[in-house]
Amino acid sequence: MPKANELGVTPQSEDFSAWYNELVLRAELADRGPVRGTMIMRPYGYRIWELLQAELDARIKATGHDNVYFPLFIPEENLRKEAEHVEGFSPELAVVTIAGGEVLEQPLVVRPTSEAIIGESFSRWIESWRDLPVLVNQWCNVVRWELRPRLFLRTTEFLWQEGHTAHADEAEATKEMLLAAGFYREVTEQVAAMSPVVGDKTPGERFPGAERSVSLEAMMRDGRALQSGTSHHLGTNFAQAFDITYATADGRLQHCHTTSWGMSTRMVGGVIMTHGDDRGLILPPRLAPYQVVIVTLGAESDSGPVAEAAGSLRSELGAQGIRSRLDDRTHVRPGFKFNEWELRGVPLRVELGPRDLAGGSVTVAHRLSGEKEQLPIAGLAPAISERLEALQVDLLDRSRAFREGRTRRADSYAELVEGVATGFVLALDCGNPACEARLKDETTATPRCVPLDGTPEQGPCAICGEPSSYGTRVLFGRAY
Amino acid sequence: MPKANELGVTPQSEDFSAWYNELVLRAELADRGPVRGTMIMRPYGYRIWELLQAELDARIKATGHDNVYFPLFIPEENLRKEAEHVEGFSPELAVVTIAGGEVLEQPLVVRPTSEAIIGESFSRWIESWRDLPVLVNQWCNVVRWELRPRLFLRTTEFLWQEGHTAHADEAEATKEMLLAAGFYREVTEQVAAMSPVVGDKTPGERFPGAERSVSLEAMMRDGRALQSGTSHHLGTNFAQAFDITYATADGRLQHCHTTSWGMSTRMVGGVIMTHGDDRGLILPPRLAPYQVVIVTLGAESDSGPVAEAAGSLRSELGAQGIRSRLDDRTHVRPGFKFNEWELRGVPLRVELGPRDLAGGSVTVAHRLSGEKEQLPIAGLAPAISERLEALQVDLLDRSRAFREGRTRRADSYAELVEGVATGFVLALDCGNPACEARLKDETTATPRCVPLDGTPEQGPCAICGEPSSYGTRVLFGRAY
Repeated sequence: MPKANELGVTPQSEDFSAWYNELVLRAELADRGPVRGTMIMRPYGYRIWELLQAELDARIKATGHDNVYFPLFIPEENLRKEAEHVEGFSPELAVVTIAGGEVLEQPLVVRPTSEAIIGESFSRWIESWRDLPVLVNQWCNVVRWELRPRLFLRTTEFLWQEGHTAHADEAEATKEMLLAAGFYREVTEQVAAMSPVVGDKTPGERFPGAERSVSLEAMMRDGRALQSGTSHHLGTNFAQAFDITYATADGRLQHCHTTSWGMSTRMVGGVIMTHGDDRGLILPPRLAPYQVVIVTLGAESDSGPVAEAAGSLRSELGAQGIRSRLDDRTHVRPGFKFNEWELRGVPLRVELGPRDLAGGSVTVAHRLSGEKEQLPIAGLAPAISERLEALQVDLLDRSRAFREGRTRRADSYAELVEGVATGFVLALDCGNPACEARLKDETTATPRCVPLDGTPEQGPCAICGEPSSYGTRVLFGRAY
Repeated sequence: MPKANELGVTPQSEDFSAWYNELVLRAELADRGPVRGTMIMRPYGYRIWELLQAELDARIKATGHDNVYFPLFIPEENLRKEAEHVEGFSPELAVVTIAGGEVLEQPLVVRPTSEAIIGESFSRWIESWRDLPVLVNQWCNVVRWELRPRLFLRTTEFLWQEGHTAHADEAEATKEMLLAAGFYREVTEQVAAMSPVVGDKTPGERFPGAERSVSLEAMMRDGRALQSGTSHHLGTNFAQAFDITYATADGRLQHCHTTSWGMSTRMVGGVIMTHGDDRGLILPPRLAPYQVVIVTLGAESDSGPVAEAAGSLRSELGAQGIRSRLDDRTHVRPGFKFNEWELRGVPLRVELGPRDLAGGSVTVAHRLSGEKEQLPIAGLAPAISERLEALQVDLLDRSRAFREGRTRRADSYAELVEGVATGFVLALDCGNPACEARLKDETTATPRCVPLDGTPEQGPCAICGEPSSYGTRVLFGRAY
């Protein structure tokens, strides 16, 4: 087992939290900013976000949404228009009181989310049924003051996309909310190789102002949940607050039904905690800034035939659409380079030295399994491609198996308490806030969601024994 | 000539400023935000920015720069470290004084630009010559409080990219500064079809804290300049302020030379004012959200054979990489649709009705020339492609010819004053701030730049008659 002093990172198996914090810095994913709770996304970390962003943006556009950009600053009075909304976000707001050298008459809130500024525009843009649906999305920064900040997971400023839509009726809005949850699921599973449970938030856990919130709950390798994408049906709450109405075909004036949905840079934290191990990150190929690192060996590894072979291999990989990086440093030992790229989670390492070259083959080391194999240089790119595709699938399977293995059914409070200590629990829940509060006080666990694909079931609440609500078991867990 | 009431927009030839303001709203490019000086970028306007962004981002990445993200909030003390920098930006700052329900001990500045936060990281990241150069870029929002806001041109918040780099010596930093100016020129000319003059800012017009600033100065159709991209050599000013040093190969400690460069959403304003005419926008094909609009004609234009033909034409255009939009509305007249898409600047309109279909041909209307031609439906996509490519070139040629036609040489103050009333003037300049101040007071014109490709020339200053500086003529003009 690697020691902390060898890689500079505490092993995951010893202290998950220390491992995470140290790894984020050591792998050069992010730094802490000078203001408490802020984050500097370094090239390696930002690239993961960019790759995720491109995949998500393509799906958002393909389903008819247009990108837009709304201002960062929201007048305080706008935020107050939806009562639950302002109550939910008030404690977390950053407020601009001075601008252009003068004290502002009305303070400006730095957006924690944009419903309160988008609602006003929707009300101006929408006149008749012909204008519906309105389907927009924006990529931006938002600010929520965090008391216990953590890089990627809870930062006072984070990057995300927020989709906002307006529809003629509830059915259309519900369809939209599920559409967004659907492409979040697709990106989470197919791109981030994370296997989430998708379900409805219980009333106490909903977005402030929402009628219905659907979330994705992925399991990290310490058994905790990470909410990785949420989609909200806002009913007519915001439409009433911001006067978003339309004339129907027969001339009646009706309120729109609106939705909003978001996925953020905390997904990068999810990728780290879903796949990483004692030796560091393991990046799913679709999100890896470098899918392959070519490490040249030997005293003259940065020149001559080895360097030439490495160069042409890079071109071949590039032509195959594979992102690669060449490490031809001569001032550090090969072992140092191997450790570094393992720590940074590069899926495959190609070792190329004079002896390999003479034999017409290379050594390919697999980050996940630790296995090594000899492969002929000729036709290497397609062979690498196959391995990357297989790894993408393996990581998703591994994530699903891990979550399923750490999810149990509980029919008593004791079982529930025991289960949330190490993973997820499916239990019947009466829906009484007192029961949820008791569990939270005693274990920090909360109802994560009511799985959309849950088997219909009723019976006594696992906490108090009263008849259950929700019609199926609720997923409980401790969460980030 | 169209009337204001027909299109809802004052003709450009009557009142350029009113035309611009009305067109931005009427073409649904942007709206004013609820906070004075802020802007809502609507789908059509944001898409132009996204297309520009993709072109620029590709060039930034291809030249070895990595994208990153630094925090929005900068501690006030960071900003104070570079004296000229803080002096230049102080009047424009927005300041957060309350966060998480409490008054902050140290106010936070909302970034007006990020040198003052990036410098601190560079100082931590860079140790030896092996770490150089550092080449990063970020896409983000910045805030500068504007007294006379104008959509896209001067908004209190705008979107941009800011490149930041650190180098071993002045020569490397100069090379980098010119590299950035080079890809700005390429994007401005090849993508936005604007023909700028590229040159050095005179000392009074430099970026606060820069040793050398190179800018692109494009000419709008009212003869005014729009600065569309700037690249700065910051010397060791920020390196000294933020302690950015490196150990040379022989172990000496030296300050880095840094650069920064930016291009913003004001480019969208530049595109509007470079190409538009009395009938509205004219978008260069590479930035047009829709390069072609297909307008179906006839009572049943949204169903039957016409709709089918329009559908397959869209597929053919898509396969050719052409962005198209179908307008099959039946509740508005064709003339209304024609006007609308002309106002919104779609380069080509394909008119498709039952008669065209029967004849196997369509009418293609050119937005720039106003000409119409009949083209066979078979093989239409490649024909459209050719026309879009030709238009892209025509627009650049037209922009260059317009600028050249409105640029004169002046050897006396009277000629200089006369010239800047309608366009650019090339004149010898002694470099005395008093001369520049006099010209500005009397005409609002300023030295825009010292063209990089200016012919060597010396002689008496056109303003005061003293010997000229800069070794070539300086470009003067009134600017946005």
